[in-house]
Amino acid sequence: MTAAQNEFLLIERFFSGTGKSRFPVMLSQGDDAAIVDLPVGKQLVMSVDTLISGVHFPEQTSAADIAYKSLAVNLSDLAAMGATPAWFLLSITLPKFDEAWLSEFSASLKATSNQHQIELIGGDTCRGPLSITIQITGLVERNKYVGRSGANVGDLILVTGKLGNAALGLAHLQQRLRLPADLIQLCVAALNRPSPRLELADFLTSYASAAIDLSDGLVGDLRHILDQSHKGALLRRDDLPVNDWIRSQQGYDFALTGGDDFELCLTVPAKYKGAIDHWNQQNPHCKLTDIGEITGSGYQLVNKNKTVDLNHWQGYQHFE
Amino acid sequence: MTAAQNEFLLIERFFSGTGKSRFPVMLSQGDDAAIVDLPVGKQLVMSVDTLISGVHFPEQTSAADIAYKSLAVNLSDLAAMGATPAWFLLSITLPKFDEAWLSEFSASLKATSNQHQIELIGGDTCRGPLSITIQITGLVERNKYVGRSGANVGDLILVTGKLGNAALGLAHLQQRLRLPADLIQLCVAALNRPSPRLELADFLTSYASAAIDLSDGLVGDLRHILDQSHKGALLRRDDLPVNDWIRSQQGYDFALTGGDDFELCLTVPAKYKGAIDHWNQQNPHCKLTDIGEITGSGYQLVNKNKTVDLNHWQGYQHFE
Repeated sequence: MTAAQNEFLLIERFFSGTGKSRFPVMLSQGDDAAIVDLPVGKQLVMSVDTLISGVHFPEQTSAADIAYKSLAVNLSDLAAMGATPAWFLLSITLPKFDEAWLSEFSASLKATSNQHQIELIGGDTCRGPLSITIQITGLVERNKYVGRSGANVGDLILVTGKLGNAALGLAHLQQRLRLPADLIQLCVAALNRPSPRLELADFLTSYASAAIDLSDGLVGDLRHILDQSHKGALLRRDDLPVNDWIRSQQGYDFALTGGDDFELCLTVPAKYKGAIDHWNQQNPHCKLTDIGEITGSGYQLVNKNKTVDLNHWQGYQHFE
Repeated sequence: MTAAQNEFLLIERFFSGTGKSRFPVMLSQGDDAAIVDLPVGKQLVMSVDTLISGVHFPEQTSAADIAYKSLAVNLSDLAAMGATPAWFLLSITLPKFDEAWLSEFSASLKATSNQHQIELIGGDTCRGPLSITIQITGLVERNKYVGRSGANVGDLILVTGKLGNAALGLAHLQQRLRLPADLIQLCVAALNRPSPRLELADFLTSYASAAIDLSDGLVGDLRHILDQSHKGALLRRDDLPVNDWIRSQQGYDFALTGGDDFELCLTVPAKYKGAIDHWNQQNPHCKLTDIGEITGSGYQLVNKNKTVDLNHWQGYQHFE
């Protein structure tokens, strides 16, 4: 047993007992593969996302925030399908064996796993530039999943939470702007600790015709729904849920093309307006805001008398 | 849409339509997550493996061989459980957009996927040092999977194929030795194109008490079975299935601690000797060789009158 191998066995020990799934696990970490049982009447929902240091998070990001965000972006993909998360696998590439860093990373991964009742059932550990790949699997009632192709003309376009805070947080950390003191913590938390909107699963599977999570910015992400549904959209700029800084500084670009919010964008037939109002009364922490509607074609943003063609908008580029 | 984003959309196009699963897929690439149906009476078998350039394969390895091996090592994990592969997700990190490289990589990935009736249902693309993470899912009859903890005293220890060829191929490529001409192609193919032993699934689920795939070398990998089964083992050196070079040069280290063979090591109760003989008559391309037996404790290699304690053997270290 060489020193490097010993290290990697140690690393694996940091990850044993991470989370407990609400669904049955027969064989977890420590074999060639994990074995899980399949609940009756469900479909599997599977996604994978890699986060690379300096690309998907600034290099100074804490180990705890990296662990949190690696799981959150994957949970957000499941949230956008109306699924309930069950298990995940982790492949982590580390530049060196750093016990303090691993301790902080694994504690945060465990806390986040427990919060969402998901279980780490297997993984792989390599040496190289810091990168974290998580493959997550969830379950959804058979044929109740929400895809990107079901939007219809007249459907309301809704988003959860606030838009643009994560991009503002990143701009602040990169010293591209100075935020007022009362917004710094909020926006940096939006960047490092996005909330996957899993609580919306029942609402989505009951009412939504399409949904997507906002990782690359509203304009680009909503375009995926429009492309796959063969529809257009009209957005109302002044209805976008943004903070006071964006409104007062006319910083709508952060809300329209800023990435990393991990809020959901969904389309809902107008006849379910009552259900939306009811949701908002019951869930003030995950408010749905009506920002526009699905049209037959075109992609426009209206602002009082002015109309912008969003088909020529610049998409947000991950900071590279 | 920036240039870099366009490139990544292009890259995704290389991977559409990769393979076709023998099991139902409801929603494949192009949404937040993939949706698959769950066959009745089965359990899921899930594994993830990352291959990093210069760590898991030499930097000069062709794109076609990298694609093949990335899938093969994951398929091998499922083979060791007695599972049948169904779907996979790919997260690929690329240093640059290289159309010729991507073309070769995706053609090889498609050929290998088709060969094994597996389907690429989703993925992620990033920019950075070359690395490929594949998460693969297979299915096994409920509670028929073969783990590492079931070996019993008196069980025969079997391996598929030949041991040490991959490590010899690597040593040759790294100019650490010169192989005779007739072995070069065989050993380099063993390194770059290992055969996942999926054809053994029915045999394993019917007769094996434990199994593991040989990625890090026989001595270290078999030790995992012994540890998890709380047993020992006695191996017979002269029964190891090795090529003539190893036998004549006494190069048994390549077979004992050389990695990357991706053969299977399994334990089978001695009463199934007839089934083993029958398998070998029917499957000369995937021959099982009896190399030792499970004991109550200890871990030894016998060679005529000499006995080596394998608990102090050096494990194979991936070339870093």
